[in-house]
Amino acid sequence: MESGATNQQFTLTHFPIRARAELARLIFAEKQINFNDVRVARDVFMKDVKPHCSFGQLPMLEGPGGFKLFQSQAIARYLARKFDLYPANLEDAAKADMIMDSCVDIADRVLGPINHGANEQEKRKLLHENGPHMLAYFEVYLQKCDSPYFLGNNFYVCDLAVAAMLREVCVLRSDILEQFPLLQSFLERVESRPNIRSYIDKRPHSTM
Amino acid sequence: MESGATNQQFTLTHFPIRARAELARLIFAEKQINFNDVRVARDVFMKDVKPHCSFGQLPMLEGPGGFKLFQSQAIARYLARKFDLYPANLEDAAKADMIMDSCVDIADRVLGPINHGANEQEKRKLLHENGPHMLAYFEVYLQKCDSPYFLGNNFYVCDLAVAAMLREVCVLRSDILEQFPLLQSFLERVESRPNIRSYIDKRPHSTM
Repeated sequence: MESGATNQQFTLTHFPIRARAELARLIFAEKQINFNDVRVARDVFMKDVKPHCSFGQLPMLEGPGGFKLFQSQAIARYLARKFDLYPANLEDAAKADMIMDSCVDIADRVLGPINHGANEQEKRKLLHENGPHMLAYFEVYLQKCDSPYFLGNNFYVCDLAVAAMLREVCVLRSDILEQFPLLQSFLERVESRPNIRSYIDKRPHSTM
Repeated sequence: MESGATNQQFTLTHFPIRARAELARLIFAEKQINFNDVRVARDVFMKDVKPHCSFGQLPMLEGPGGFKLFQSQAIARYLARKFDLYPANLEDAAKADMIMDSCVDIADRVLGPINHGANEQEKRKLLHENGPHMLAYFEVYLQKCDSPYFLGNNFYVCDLAVAAMLREVCVLRSDILEQFPLLQSFLERVESRPNIRSYIDKRPHSTM
């Protein structure tokens, strides 16, 4: 178990990968909130951590007063609300939710199968057919917005979610955004935000 | 395309099944909000509706002023916030999100595979091993809460989400809750709320 600085307000526990915990880490980075970034190996998780997980899974967020939260998207929404990366307006909040859920669809249907057992033929289909098919909706959405971010000029958690998802897709197929110029420039825009850039440059290496 | 009453504030469009749209319908029912309950066949969807869906999928919610929203959970959260079924407190809202996301896990990993192509052996494993394993976390959660609903005495969208999920699981295996007495009584509690009962008694029949 590797632990970051201690005495922080929040502790985020996950496996030593980006995956489902990375959106929360990016929120902390963007807002420059120090937190305990705890990364546990699978055997340690099974023995010491899983029995304390409400739904048997990581990531886990622990906060002040014994507050414990599970489910990557619930954690991201909570941190975004707490640290002002979530729209206040009902309709914009709903759109942020919609965009985040659409990123989860890509994680579930493209990234997950590739990272967990798809064979070469299946991988090729996911990265050259299903993946681009789903990404095309994001490209069109951004085109209709005609704005730097998905909800206009303001930067919200849904933008971080899309950028994190796009980065994972690019890790698996580096040229995939060539057919999506708006997503390509969007990803560059988000990843060149100073706090995000600085975090990405120093985050631990992992394949996913 | 079957359409309900007209001139309503909201129109919810989905296939003629409960599935991913039922949580939104239950919110409308609980709050006695009239809405256009539009149910489209798959061929009509492909031809007339899909081209207007931001991410190519149903359900779709349409509201005042051209507001359009996709993704079942984003729709449920929006309606719950709008009609006061969502906790105001940040920590409780996060827990509601977590519980809803955990229901989606069961929809994705148990209900989805069974309703879309699992063979008899796979179905049996899902309903007698994976499903009960996941439901056990909800039973323990409710036991620790020691309250009528998942967040205490107040009834929220997460309770509707759990009840909807439990009902779908029971449709596939009617005795599955015998090993989970708290979930059994929770489901009865939610389904005997007058507005929910009245809706369930008259909703269109479908296998899922």
